[in-house]
Amino acid sequence: MAIVRYINNPIITRHDVKPSRNDFEVIGVFNPGAVMFDGEYILLLRVAEKPVNDDPSYHVVCYYDEAKNNIEFIRIKKDHNKVYDPRVINHENGNYLTSISHFRIARSKDGYNFTIDDKPTIKPSNIYEAYGIEDARITEIDGVYYINYCSASSLGITTSLALTKDFINFKKEGIIFCPDNKDVAIFPEKINGKYYALHRPSCSNFGKPEMWIAESPDLLCWGNHRKLAGLRDNSWDSGRIGAGAVPFRTLYGWVEIYHGATVDDRYYLGVMLLDLNKPWVVLARSETPLVTPEAPYESEGFLGNVVFSCGVVAEGENIKLYYGAADESVACIDLKLSDILENINISV
Amino acid sequence: MAIVRYINNPIITRHDVKPSRNDFEVIGVFNPGAVMFDGEYILLLRVAEKPVNDDPSYHVVCYYDEAKNNIEFIRIKKDHNKVYDPRVINHENGNYLTSISHFRIARSKDGYNFTIDDKPTIKPSNIYEAYGIEDARITEIDGVYYINYCSASSLGITTSLALTKDFINFKKEGIIFCPDNKDVAIFPEKINGKYYALHRPSCSNFGKPEMWIAESPDLLCWGNHRKLAGLRDNSWDSGRIGAGAVPFRTLYGWVEIYHGATVDDRYYLGVMLLDLNKPWVVLARSETPLVTPEAPYESEGFLGNVVFSCGVVAEGENIKLYYGAADESVACIDLKLSDILENINISV
Repeated sequence: MAIVRYINNPIITRHDVKPSRNDFEVIGVFNPGAVMFDGEYILLLRVAEKPVNDDPSYHVVCYYDEAKNNIEFIRIKKDHNKVYDPRVINHENGNYLTSISHFRIARSKDGYNFTIDDKPTIKPSNIYEAYGIEDARITEIDGVYYINYCSASSLGITTSLALTKDFINFKKEGIIFCPDNKDVAIFPEKINGKYYALHRPSCSNFGKPEMWIAESPDLLCWGNHRKLAGLRDNSWDSGRIGAGAVPFRTLYGWVEIYHGATVDDRYYLGVMLLDLNKPWVVLARSETPLVTPEAPYESEGFLGNVVFSCGVVAEGENIKLYYGAADESVACIDLKLSDILENINISV
Repeated sequence: MAIVRYINNPIITRHDVKPSRNDFEVIGVFNPGAVMFDGEYILLLRVAEKPVNDDPSYHVVCYYDEAKNNIEFIRIKKDHNKVYDPRVINHENGNYLTSISHFRIARSKDGYNFTIDDKPTIKPSNIYEAYGIEDARITEIDGVYYINYCSASSLGITTSLALTKDFINFKKEGIIFCPDNKDVAIFPEKINGKYYALHRPSCSNFGKPEMWIAESPDLLCWGNHRKLAGLRDNSWDSGRIGAGAVPFRTLYGWVEIYHGATVDDRYYLGVMLLDLNKPWVVLARSETPLVTPEAPYESEGFLGNVVFSCGVVAEGENIKLYYGAADESVACIDLKLSDILENINISV
């Protein structure tokens, strides 16, 4: 199988997105949730911005202050002897992210050429979202679009839920997975009377960054947490794994496009096939990645060697895989279901 | 207010508990859940055991192996130049606990003199409980006794639920809070149609060990997670806090006896008063601790300077506070409700 990337990748770059404020610049647009709505492809883009800063001797970081309902700025003197993580500044008052993310809608008739809203669709609005909201996954159930997303703050990394019926009005429903937890993907239907979600707890003590599954009566409260799949030594998914796209139903099982990274943070996409009636049972899993970061826009960028998907649009045999490349832009790959099944050694 | 400890404290020591196996020794009995049942005081004791080991040049650790349904042992050569945490051994294959805990019932007519079962009541029985089960809290709702407890394994620190109606037959209901999470205390009634629980996520990145609150329709699935109370600089609860006893209702609000520790791990007990109808609202909180570890059995032991409660028995104005002392034995303090309220500056 040869994965063929869309010829005009990346399909969206930071230059295509207007900043949300005059004193911000867009540094990345990536990891979109994806869904069909009203005959259009909809992407819910993660737009990462940072304060415009002309003084190279300082970092300027910012966060949302709920009490003031405003963005606050902090100037931190740079130590030129220090090597900084491009994503996080460790400061005496705590850790800050170098950027703050919100969600922006992009619409397309063909799935490749998108028109991007000028203004944010969903913004940080509470103390749990002070450092931004990230990595939306969209699950449609009975005409309601459930959007789960990661929020970051000094209180930890949590996953929250919002919903919409029209992609105009959105309602936030609070935190569904407490810190630290991210990479949540909700299944698009009840299975034996219960909702299911993949999730990725981060443990401070014994555990590893692995994939778990939980169940729910109402999409708001989650329990019966079980480990679904672990790291694999000496593999492309030896360092961390987590759900990627929202799972979709096939005759063979639920197809989950997940991300795995090596211990030195090279991110790949792979496939897990989960039992249709017992989604906590892994039927098959990629030995070799489905997508390896090797295109120039994947291997170089804000965070090089990263491919990371939050959503696919599956229409019968045709799957449009949307993904963030190098934490900087959005790319697309057209796949046949047979390509995906071949990767996990299932012959159709 | 002068807190008066029960004169014959500690009321239960490790010498009172029979090992669960001939090749185990009991190293501590502490942090009991507490409840009245059928006219008796019931404590659900955490019994910590370790393999008998006569070879001082080795650590011997053990864990429950679900596949073999058996306890497995690991011998680890000691490095005499190394200072070991008494609780955890860091080994090349992972971290292990130095002891493995189970639960044992103790019964009493007077609340001080307990008869302890010869055999374990609840034991580790699955992969999430491989390193033991710890710190039971018992919440009675409509004649069912819900027991939540912490379980430890290489998959992380989780909180599970079990239930009983008779303290003879117990049913495990799976994990209700995914890793890392401990110090869960379930409120003893629905509030405005929902169940509530205090919990303590441990974050790997930004967050701190602070108290959160969640809600549930069924006690199994939990959501709408919110931070309840944080650390206080330069205070007895500056390092970590977590729920202690199961909250109990008073005219003034829900009384929660919680634990706080300094950054150098000296553990105290304090009081939080929570709004009866909005338990996520803290009405009052101890400036000075209710209980300071100062008795000999509290300040010295397996882990000195620790007082830690998982349960009280509240009968009107009279509260029997049970707690673990120095992670080694069980102690009791008789309190009046007025003592507790005085600690948070509420005059009756």
